[in-house]
Amino acid sequence: MPLARIDLAQGKSPDYRRTVGDVVYDVMVATVNAPKDDRFQIITEHPPDGVIADPSYLGLRRTANCIFIQLTLNEGRTLDQKRAFYKAVADGLHERLGVRREEVFINLVEVKKENWSFGNGEAQYAQ
Amino acid sequence: MPLARIDLAQGKSPDYRRTVGDVVYDVMVATVNAPKDDRFQIITEHPPDGVIADPSYLGLRRTANCIFIQLTLNEGRTLDQKRAFYKAVADGLHERLGVRREEVFINLVEVKKENWSFGNGEAQYAQ
Amino acid sequence: MPLARIDLAQGKSPDYRRTVGDVVYDVMVATVNAPKDDRFQIITEHPPDGVIADPSYLGLRRTANCIFIQLTLNEGRTLDQKRAFYKAVADGLHERLGVRREEVFINLVEVKKENWSFGNGEAQYAQ
Repeated sequence: MPLARIDLAQGKSPDYRRTVGDVVYDVMVATVNAPKDDRFQIITEHPPDGVIADPSYLGLRRTANCIFIQLTLNEGRTLDQKRAFYKAVADGLHERLGVRREEVFINLVEVKKENWSFGNGEAQYAQ
Repeated sequence: MPLARIDLAQGKSPDYRRTVGDVVYDVMVATVNAPKDDRFQIITEHPPDGVIADPSYLGLRRTANCIFIQLTLNEGRTLDQKRAFYKAVADGLHERLGVRREEVFINLVEVKKENWSFGNGEAQYAQ
Repeated sequence: MPLARIDLAQGKSPDYRRTVGDVVYDVMVATVNAPKDDRFQIITEHPPDGVIADPSYLGLRRTANCIFIQLTLNEGRTLDQKRAFYKAVADGLHERLGVRREEVFINLVEVKKENWSFGNGEAQYAQ
Protein backbone atom coordinates (compact mmCIF):
# COMPACT_ATOMS: atom_id res chain seq x y z
CA MET A 1 0.00 0.00 0.00
CA PRO A 2 2.75 2.52 0.08
CA LEU A 3 3.27 5.27 -2.46
CA ALA A 4 6.92 6.26 -2.63
CA ARG A 5 8.02 9.64 -3.91
CA ILE A 6 11.72 9.60 -4.63
CA ASP A 7 13.41 12.88 -5.50
CA LEU A 8 17.03 13.34 -6.49
CA ALA A 9 19.29 15.59 -8.52
CA GLN A 10 19.64 14.89 -12.22
CA GLY A 11 22.81 13.35 -13.58
CA LYS A 12 22.34 9.75 -12.56
CA SER A 13 21.63 6.96 -15.02
CA PRO A 14 18.24 5.35 -15.55
CA ASP A 15 19.74 2.20 -14.01
CA TYR A 16 20.71 4.14 -10.90
CA ARG A 17 17.23 5.54 -10.46
CA ARG A 18 15.61 2.19 -11.11
CA THR A 19 17.84 0.60 -8.50
CA VAL A 20 16.90 3.23 -5.94
CA GLY A 21 13.30 2.23 -6.53
CA ASP A 22 14.20 -1.47 -6.32
CA VAL A 23 15.86 -0.95 -2.94
CA VAL A 24 12.92 0.96 -1.53
CA TYR A 25 10.50 -1.69 -2.74
CA ASP A 26 12.58 -4.65 -1.56
CA VAL A 27 13.01 -3.10 1.88
CA MET A 28 9.31 -2.32 2.20
CA VAL A 29 8.47 -5.94 1.66
CA ALA A 30 11.21 -7.12 4.01
CA THR A 31 10.72 -4.71 6.92
CA VAL A 32 7.23 -3.23 7.03
CA ASN A 33 5.16 -6.09 5.62
CA ALA A 34 4.31 -4.46 2.34
CA PRO A 35 2.68 -7.08 0.11
CA LYS A 36 4.64 -8.51 -2.79
CA ASP A 37 4.09 -6.58 -6.03
CA ASP A 38 2.73 -3.57 -4.16
CA ARG A 39 5.03 -1.20 -5.98
CA PHE A 40 3.92 2.33 -6.78
CA GLN A 41 6.70 4.86 -7.10
CA ILE A 42 7.21 8.31 -8.52
CA ILE A 43 10.88 9.04 -9.17
CA THR A 44 11.69 12.61 -10.10
CA GLU A 45 14.96 14.14 -11.25
CA HIS A 46 15.57 17.78 -10.44
CA PRO A 47 18.04 20.44 -11.53
CA PRO A 48 20.83 20.91 -8.97
CA ASP A 49 19.11 23.86 -7.31
CA GLY A 50 15.79 22.02 -7.07
CA VAL A 51 16.77 19.73 -4.23
CA ILE A 52 18.16 21.40 -1.14
CA ALA A 53 19.55 19.31 1.70
CA ASP A 54 21.41 21.04 4.46
CA PRO A 55 25.10 20.07 4.19
CA SER A 56 25.60 19.41 7.90
CA TYR A 57 22.33 19.19 9.86
CA LEU A 58 22.66 16.83 12.86
CA GLY A 59 26.34 16.43 12.08
CA LEU A 60 25.88 14.47 8.86
CA ARG A 61 27.53 15.51 5.61
CA ARG A 62 25.22 15.87 2.64
CA THR A 63 26.00 16.77 -0.97
CA ALA A 64 24.14 17.05 -4.24
CA ASN A 65 23.84 13.27 -4.15
CA CYS A 66 21.27 13.36 -1.37
CA ILE A 67 18.22 11.17 -2.04
CA PHE A 68 14.82 12.17 -0.70
CA ILE A 69 12.34 9.38 -0.03
CA GLN A 70 8.83 10.23 1.12
CA LEU A 71 6.64 7.23 1.72
CA THR A 72 2.89 7.36 2.25
CA LEU A 73 1.75 4.14 3.94
CA ASN A 74 -0.85 2.69 6.25
CA GLU A 75 -0.64 3.62 9.90
CA GLY A 76 0.23 0.93 12.39
CA ARG A 77 3.92 0.23 11.89
CA THR A 78 5.86 -0.02 15.13
CA LEU A 79 8.85 2.13 15.89
CA ASP A 80 11.03 -0.95 15.50
CA GLN A 81 9.68 -1.55 12.02
CA LYS A 82 10.30 2.06 11.08
CA ARG A 83 13.86 1.89 12.38
CA ALA A 84 14.43 -1.32 10.45
CA PHE A 85 13.09 0.34 7.31
CA TYR A 86 15.37 3.38 7.62
CA LYS A 87 18.43 1.26 8.26
CA ALA A 88 17.79 -1.22 5.49
CA VAL A 89 17.15 1.51 2.92
CA ALA A 90 20.38 3.29 3.82
CA ASP A 91 22.31 0.02 3.84
CA GLY A 92 20.78 -1.14 0.56
CA LEU A 93 21.50 2.11 -1.26
CA HIS A 94 25.04 2.03 0.04
CA GLU A 95 25.66 -1.56 -0.92
CA ARG A 96 24.03 -1.52 -4.32
CA LEU A 97 24.84 2.01 -5.49
CA GLY A 98 27.63 3.29 -3.28
CA VAL A 99 25.39 6.00 -1.83
CA ARG A 100 26.81 7.39 1.40
CA ARG A 101 24.37 6.49 4.16
CA GLU A 102 24.38 10.09 5.40
CA GLU A 103 22.68 11.16 2.18
CA VAL A 104 19.51 9.13 2.56
CA PHE A 105 16.64 11.31 3.78
CA ILE A 106 13.39 9.49 4.60
CA ASN A 107 9.99 10.68 5.73
CA LEU A 108 6.86 8.63 6.40
CA VAL A 109 3.29 9.89 6.08
CA GLU A 110 0.73 7.56 7.63
CA VAL A 111 -2.85 7.22 6.45
CA LYS A 112 -5.87 4.98 7.01
CA LYS A 113 -6.38 1.75 5.09
CA GLU A 114 -9.49 3.13 3.49
CA ASN A 115 -7.48 5.95 1.92
CA TRP A 116 -6.31 3.93 -1.07
CA SER A 117 -7.74 2.89 -4.38
CA PHE A 118 -5.45 0.69 -6.46
CA GLY A 119 -7.63 0.87 -9.50
CA ASN A 120 -11.17 0.16 -10.68
CA GLY A 121 -12.48 2.88 -8.39
CA GLU A 122 -12.56 0.52 -5.43
CA ALA A 123 -11.24 0.92 -1.88
CA GLN A 124 -9.46 -2.42 -1.85
CA TYR A 125 -8.13 -2.14 1.71
CA ALA A 126 -11.24 -0.75 3.41
CA GLN A 127 -12.78 -2.99 6.03
CA MET B 1 -9.70 22.52 0.47
CA PRO B 2 -8.00 19.73 -1.29
CA LEU B 3 -4.63 19.91 -2.98
CA ALA B 4 -4.40 17.34 -5.77
CA ARG B 5 -1.08 16.04 -7.04
CA ILE B 6 -1.59 14.26 -10.33
CA ASP B 7 1.36 12.38 -11.80
CA LEU B 8 1.43 10.61 -15.14
CA ALA B 9 3.81 9.58 -17.90
CA GLN B 10 4.60 12.12 -20.61
CA GLY B 11 3.13 11.75 -24.04
CA LYS B 12 -0.41 12.91 -23.47
CA SER B 13 -1.79 16.17 -24.81
CA PRO B 14 -2.33 19.32 -22.74
CA ASP B 15 -6.06 18.73 -23.24
CA TYR B 16 -5.78 15.25 -21.80
CA ARG B 17 -3.99 16.50 -18.69
CA ARG B 18 -6.41 19.36 -18.25
CA THR B 19 -9.34 16.96 -18.48
CA VAL B 20 -7.81 14.71 -15.83
CA GLY B 21 -7.74 17.76 -13.56
CA ASP B 22 -11.31 18.65 -14.54
CA VAL B 23 -12.54 15.19 -13.59
CA VAL B 24 -10.80 15.23 -10.22
CA TYR B 25 -12.20 18.67 -9.45
CA ASP B 26 -15.74 17.89 -10.63
CA VAL B 27 -15.82 14.68 -8.59
CA MET B 28 -14.50 16.41 -5.47
CA VAL B 29 -17.36 18.86 -5.59
CA ALA B 30 -19.91 16.12 -6.32
CA THR B 31 -18.82 13.47 -3.82
CA VAL B 32 -16.83 14.90 -0.92
CA ASN B 33 -18.40 18.32 -0.55
CA ALA B 34 -15.46 20.32 -1.82
CA PRO B 35 -16.58 23.92 -2.28
CA LYS B 36 -17.10 25.26 -5.77
CA ASP B 37 -13.96 26.89 -7.20
CA ASP B 38 -11.74 25.18 -4.65
CA ARG B 39 -9.35 23.94 -7.29
CA PHE B 40 -5.66 23.62 -6.56
CA GLN B 41 -3.81 21.03 -8.60
CA ILE B 42 -0.26 20.16 -9.50
CA ILE B 43 -0.10 18.03 -12.63
CA THR B 44 3.31 16.59 -13.44
CA GLU B 45 4.48 14.68 -16.50
CA HIS B 46 7.28 12.18 -16.03
CA PRO B 47 9.59 10.24 -18.33
CA PRO B 48 8.42 6.64 -18.77
CA ASP B 49 10.74 5.32 -16.07
CA GLY B 50 9.65 8.00 -13.58
CA VAL B 51 6.27 6.50 -12.78
CA ILE B 52 6.26 2.91 -11.69
CA ALA B 53 2.97 1.07 -11.19
CA ASP B 54 3.04 -2.64 -10.66
CA PRO B 55 1.54 -4.31 -13.77
CA SER B 56 -0.65 -6.77 -11.86
CA TYR B 57 -0.97 -5.98 -8.13
CA LEU B 58 -4.35 -7.12 -6.76
CA GLY B 59 -5.12 -8.68 -10.11
CA LEU B 60 -5.50 -5.43 -12.01
CA ARG B 61 -3.60 -4.75 -15.22
CA ARG B 62 -1.62 -1.52 -15.31
CA THR B 63 0.46 -0.02 -18.09
CA ALA B 64 2.42 3.16 -18.72
CA ASN B 65 -0.96 4.93 -18.87
CA CYS B 66 -1.48 4.63 -15.12
CA ILE B 67 -2.54 7.90 -13.47
CA PHE B 68 -1.50 8.66 -9.90
CA ILE B 69 -3.76 10.96 -7.90
CA GLN B 70 -2.75 11.97 -4.38
CA LEU B 71 -5.23 14.22 -2.67
CA THR B 72 -4.57 16.10 0.55
CA LEU B 73 -7.89 17.08 2.12
CA ASN B 74 -9.58 17.79 5.41
CA GLU B 75 -10.27 14.85 7.67
CA GLY B 76 -13.85 13.86 8.30
CA ARG B 77 -15.00 12.21 5.09
CA THR B 78 -16.91 8.99 5.64
CA LEU B 79 -15.90 5.73 4.07
CA ASP B 80 -18.93 5.98 1.81
CA GLN B 81 -17.79 9.37 0.58
CA LYS B 82 -14.32 8.05 -0.10
CA ARG B 83 -15.72 5.07 -2.00
CA ALA B 84 -17.91 7.39 -4.03
CA PHE B 85 -14.92 9.56 -4.81
CA TYR B 86 -12.79 6.65 -6.02
CA LYS B 87 -15.56 5.25 -8.18
CA ALA B 88 -16.53 8.57 -9.73
CA VAL B 89 -12.94 9.46 -10.58
CA ALA B 90 -12.35 6.12 -12.27
CA ASP B 91 -15.68 6.35 -14.09
CA GLY B 92 -15.08 9.95 -15.13
CA LEU B 93 -11.61 9.29 -16.48
CA HIS B 94 -12.91 6.29 -18.36
CA GLU B 95 -15.87 8.11 -19.85
CA ARG B 96 -14.14 11.33 -20.76
CA LEU B 97 -10.69 10.08 -21.74
CA GLY B 98 -10.99 6.36 -22.32
CA VAL B 99 -8.69 5.60 -19.39
CA ARG B 100 -9.01 2.00 -18.26
CA ARG B 101 -10.45 2.05 -14.73
CA GLU B 102 -7.74 -0.33 -13.57
CA GLU B 103 -5.14 2.37 -14.20
CA VAL B 104 -6.45 4.95 -11.75
CA PHE B 105 -4.42 4.96 -8.54
CA ILE B 106 -5.73 7.20 -5.75
CA ASN B 107 -4.42 8.03 -2.29
CA LEU B 108 -5.90 10.39 0.29
CA VAL B 109 -3.91 12.25 2.95
CA GLU B 110 -6.10 13.79 5.64
CA VAL B 111 -5.21 16.93 7.58
CA LYS B 112 -6.84 19.38 9.99
CA LYS B 113 -8.86 22.35 8.80
CA GLU B 114 -6.34 24.73 10.30
CA ASN B 115 -3.60 23.31 8.09
CA TRP B 116 -4.47 25.44 5.08
CA SER B 117 -3.77 28.95 3.94
CA PHE B 118 -5.38 29.87 0.62
CA GLY B 119 -3.54 33.15 0.38
CA ASN B 120 -2.99 36.40 2.24
CA GLY B 121 -1.21 34.53 5.01
CA GLU B 122 -4.49 33.63 6.69
CA ALA B 123 -5.82 30.30 7.99
CA GLN B 124 -9.17 30.63 6.26
CA TYR B 125 -10.61 27.35 7.55
CA ALA B 126 -9.42 27.54 11.16
CA GLN B 127 -12.17 27.72 13.74
CA MET C 1 12.28 18.42 10.72
CA PRO C 2 10.11 19.75 7.98
CA LEU C 3 10.26 18.74 4.37
CA ALA C 4 9.05 21.55 2.13
CA ARG C 5 7.72 20.91 -1.35
CA ILE C 6 7.55 24.16 -3.26
CA ASP C 7 5.87 24.14 -6.65
CA LEU C 8 5.59 27.07 -9.03
CA ALA C 9 5.32 27.87 -12.72
CA GLN C 10 8.49 28.08 -14.76
CA GLY C 11 9.83 31.42 -15.87
CA LYS C 12 11.36 32.70 -12.66
CA SER C 13 15.10 33.01 -12.10
CA PRO C 14 17.18 30.62 -10.02
CA ASP C 15 17.62 33.49 -7.56
CA TYR C 16 13.87 33.86 -7.26
CA ARG C 17 13.36 30.20 -6.51
CA ARG C 18 16.24 30.15 -4.06
CA THR C 19 14.79 33.12 -2.24
CA VAL C 20 11.40 31.42 -1.96
CA GLY C 21 13.21 28.56 -0.24
CA ASP C 22 15.11 31.01 1.97
CA VAL C 23 11.88 32.65 3.12
CA VAL C 24 10.22 29.33 3.93
CA TYR C 25 13.27 28.20 5.88
CA ASP C 26 13.75 31.48 7.74
CA VAL C 27 10.09 31.57 8.75
CA MET C 28 10.11 27.96 9.91
CA VAL C 29 12.92 28.74 12.30
CA ALA C 30 11.28 31.96 13.47
CA THR C 31 7.70 30.79 13.92
CA VAL C 32 7.41 27.04 14.42
CA ASN C 33 10.65 26.26 16.23
CA ALA C 34 12.36 24.45 13.41
CA PRO C 35 15.98 23.88 14.38
CA LYS C 36 18.68 25.94 12.70
CA ASP C 37 20.07 24.23 9.58
CA ASP C 38 17.07 21.91 9.35
CA ARG C 39 16.55 22.72 5.69
CA PHE C 40 15.22 20.10 3.29
CA GLN C 41 13.37 21.46 0.30
CA ILE C 42 12.23 20.26 -3.09
CA ILE C 43 11.54 23.14 -5.44
CA THR C 44 9.89 22.20 -8.72
CA GLU C 45 9.17 24.34 -11.76
CA HIS C 46 6.19 23.40 -13.89
CA PRO C 47 4.89 24.33 -17.34
CA PRO C 48 2.09 26.90 -17.15
CA ASP C 49 -0.64 24.28 -17.33
CA GLY C 50 0.96 22.13 -14.63
CA VAL C 51 0.02 24.33 -11.69
CA ILE C 52 -3.65 25.19 -11.40
CA ALA C 53 -4.82 27.66 -8.78
CA ASP C 54 -8.37 28.87 -8.91
CA PRO C 55 -8.32 32.55 -9.91
CA SER C 56 -10.83 33.72 -7.32
CA TYR C 57 -11.55 31.12 -4.62
CA LEU C 58 -12.44 32.78 -1.29
CA GLY C 59 -12.34 36.13 -3.01
CA LEU C 60 -8.59 36.22 -3.55
CA ARG C 61 -7.08 36.89 -6.97
CA ARG C 62 -4.55 34.32 -8.18
CA THR C 63 -2.53 34.23 -11.37
CA ALA C 64 0.18 32.05 -12.91
CA ASN C 65 2.49 33.46 -10.23
CA CYS C 66 0.83 31.44 -7.49
CA ILE C 67 3.30 29.60 -5.25
CA PHE C 68 2.34 26.26 -3.69
CA ILE C 69 4.05 25.33 -0.44
CA GLN C 70 3.35 21.95 1.14
CA LEU C 71 5.18 21.38 4.37
CA THR C 72 5.44 18.03 6.13
CA LEU C 73 6.35 18.58 9.77
CA ASN C 74 5.99 17.15 13.24
CA GLU C 75 2.60 17.36 14.86
CA GLY C 76 2.19 19.57 17.88
CA ARG C 77 2.23 23.11 16.55
CA THR C 78 -0.48 25.32 17.99
CA LEU C 79 -2.96 27.15 15.86
CA ASP C 80 -1.21 30.39 16.77
CA GLN C 81 2.08 29.04 15.49
CA LYS C 82 0.47 27.92 12.26
CA ARG C 83 -1.15 31.32 11.79
CA ALA C 84 2.19 33.01 12.44
CA PHE C 85 3.82 30.75 9.89
CA TYR C 86 1.28 31.49 7.17
CA LYS C 87 1.45 35.23 7.76
CA ALA C 88 5.23 35.41 7.88
CA VAL C 89 5.65 33.37 4.70
CA ALA C 90 3.21 35.59 2.80
CA ASP C 91 4.83 38.73 4.21
CA GLY C 92 8.34 37.49 3.50
CA LEU C 93 7.59 36.52 -0.10
CA HIS C 94 5.92 39.87 -0.63
CA GLU C 95 8.73 41.88 0.89
CA ARG C 96 11.63 40.02 -0.66
CA LEU C 97 10.21 39.08 -4.05
CA GLY C 98 7.18 41.26 -4.61
CA VAL C 99 4.85 38.26 -4.58
CA ARG C 100 1.24 39.29 -4.02
CA ARG C 101 0.17 37.81 -0.69
CA GLU C 102 -2.97 36.40 -2.28
CA GLU C 103 -0.82 34.06 -4.35
CA VAL C 104 0.77 32.14 -1.50
CA PHE C 105 -0.92 28.77 -1.01
CA ILE C 106 0.23 26.75 2.01
CA ASN C 107 -0.67 23.31 3.30
CA LEU C 108 0.69 21.48 6.34
CA VAL C 109 0.89 17.70 6.73
CA GLU C 110 1.64 16.60 10.29
CA VAL C 111 3.49 13.41 11.19
CA LYS C 112 5.03 11.77 14.24
CA LYS C 113 8.59 12.50 15.34
CA GLU C 114 9.60 8.93 14.65
CA ASN C 115 8.65 9.32 11.00
CA TRP C 116 11.95 10.92 9.98
CA SER C 117 15.40 9.72 9.12
CA PHE C 118 17.88 12.50 8.35
CA GLY C 119 20.55 10.12 7.16
CA ASN C 120 22.57 7.12 8.28
CA GLY C 121 19.44 5.03 8.48
CA GLU C 122 18.62 6.31 11.95
CA ALA C 123 15.39 7.70 13.42
CA GLN C 124 17.05 10.77 14.91
CA TYR C 125 13.90 12.22 16.47
CA ALA C 126 12.40 9.03 17.87
CA GLN C 127 12.05 8.93 21.63
